[in-house]
Amino acid sequence: MDIAEQKRIAAEKSVDFVKDGMIVGLGTGSTVLFMVNALAKRVKQEHLHITGVATSKRTHKQAESLGIPMKSIDEVDHVDLTIDGADEVDKNFQGIKGGGAAHAFEKIVATSSTRNIWIVDESKLVDRIGRFPLPLEVIPYGSKKVFNRLQHEGLNPKFRKDDDGNDIITHSGNYVIDLHLGVIDHPHLLANWLSEQVGILEHGLFLDTVNTIVVGTPNGPKILEAYQI
Amino acid sequence: MDIAEQKRIAAEKSVDFVKDGMIVGLGTGSTVLFMVNALAKRVKQEHLHITGVATSKRTHKQAESLGIPMKSIDEVDHVDLTIDGADEVDKNFQGIKGGGAAHAFEKIVATSSTRNIWIVDESKLVDRIGRFPLPLEVIPYGSKKVFNRLQHEGLNPKFRKDDDGNDIITHSGNYVIDLHLGVIDHPHLLANWLSEQVGILEHGLFLDTVNTIVVGTPNGPKILEAYQI
Repeated sequence: MDIAEQKRIAAEKSVDFVKDGMIVGLGTGSTVLFMVNALAKRVKQEHLHITGVATSKRTHKQAESLGIPMKSIDEVDHVDLTIDGADEVDKNFQGIKGGGAAHAFEKIVATSSTRNIWIVDESKLVDRIGRFPLPLEVIPYGSKKVFNRLQHEGLNPKFRKDDDGNDIITHSGNYVIDLHLGVIDHPHLLANWLSEQVGILEHGLFLDTVNTIVVGTPNGPKILEAYQI
Repeated sequence: MDIAEQKRIAAEKSVDFVKDGMIVGLGTGSTVLFMVNALAKRVKQEHLHITGVATSKRTHKQAESLGIPMKSIDEVDHVDLTIDGADEVDKNFQGIKGGGAAHAFEKIVATSSTRNIWIVDESKLVDRIGRFPLPLEVIPYGSKKVFNRLQHEGLNPKFRKDDDGNDIITHSGNYVIDLHLGVIDHPHLLANWLSEQVGILEHGLFLDTVNTIVVGTPNGPKILEAYQI
């Protein structure tokens, strides 16, 4: 079974968690594309009254075009449930997100959300996170200084470029630096250190965030609950 | 002696610390205006070869117009000495900066600088910091969520507005939220907490940053060295 099919399976299962009346955070990425389609189908067929809050313009447009009523994060006073993808998740439910450079917005919605569900294919589940490059959103002013500090710390930074070799610019007008770490031994220590670095707006470590992971497998969707014994 | 005169005295004394060949960080604010004038005078009279790095467009323009060769922070590999103002400094040399909403850029230059000098009038020296509103630079997306979290934490936040009642926008395109705290009992705890909040780019607490404070007093400039016994 190919990866896209696993993504679709996870995405379609995840919308079962949405209940009538909820304010639902809608993430960003290829798996979320499937999820929004499935959610719109439920809204239409079951006449659900939900409100969507998107973490990117792309998701906002997709959801709106499919008839999901949308609001901005600052127009709602809370989010009941957010469904998003992830680039890597380890056995302790710690993850890396932000391959799509939307991780600052994704983290803002996630931290405003009572419950977080991640939808992934099997390849995203790892023993330890870090093989996926860890993205940092960095303000342009002084970004080379930040880069040098990261390099000095042995964190193997690289500015993310587009196909023409130009620096990627996020929706907030910032650069992305990816840390190519291989393995992250101490995610919380790294997260704390990154949080304190001047010039870094946000990092892609999502720690103690997700409550439920829905994995698409060849045998159907598998549901993993965080902190279950 | 009025405050402006105290500022001028501190500013003019501070440029004595600049040596030929240095890369000098130039801060932002009314005291820095005097300092850049005094520095430009020394550069001209003594034929100093220095390079300036400004924390704001305004300072950049002023320094350039007075003949100080300027570079951006990312064009230099280090900064030898930064001279900047401060809005409040306590007896332990911990300070608040950012009344002018340039504190993210100021902090980037300060942390890249081998030595930091602050120039202040006597009114800026306080027992404990916090009477001056503590500025936070906050990305617009989700900023009301950040505001609510700050309010919930009892930190008395207010969005900074211009004279027309519109939100102030920083050079990086962000909002400013000021925390009206009265007194900050534990600056390091607050700084750590703020650093970890999603959506806050930078706060105006400058802790363990300054090496030397030059105070303008009616009896002339007074020099305070941090960590002197």
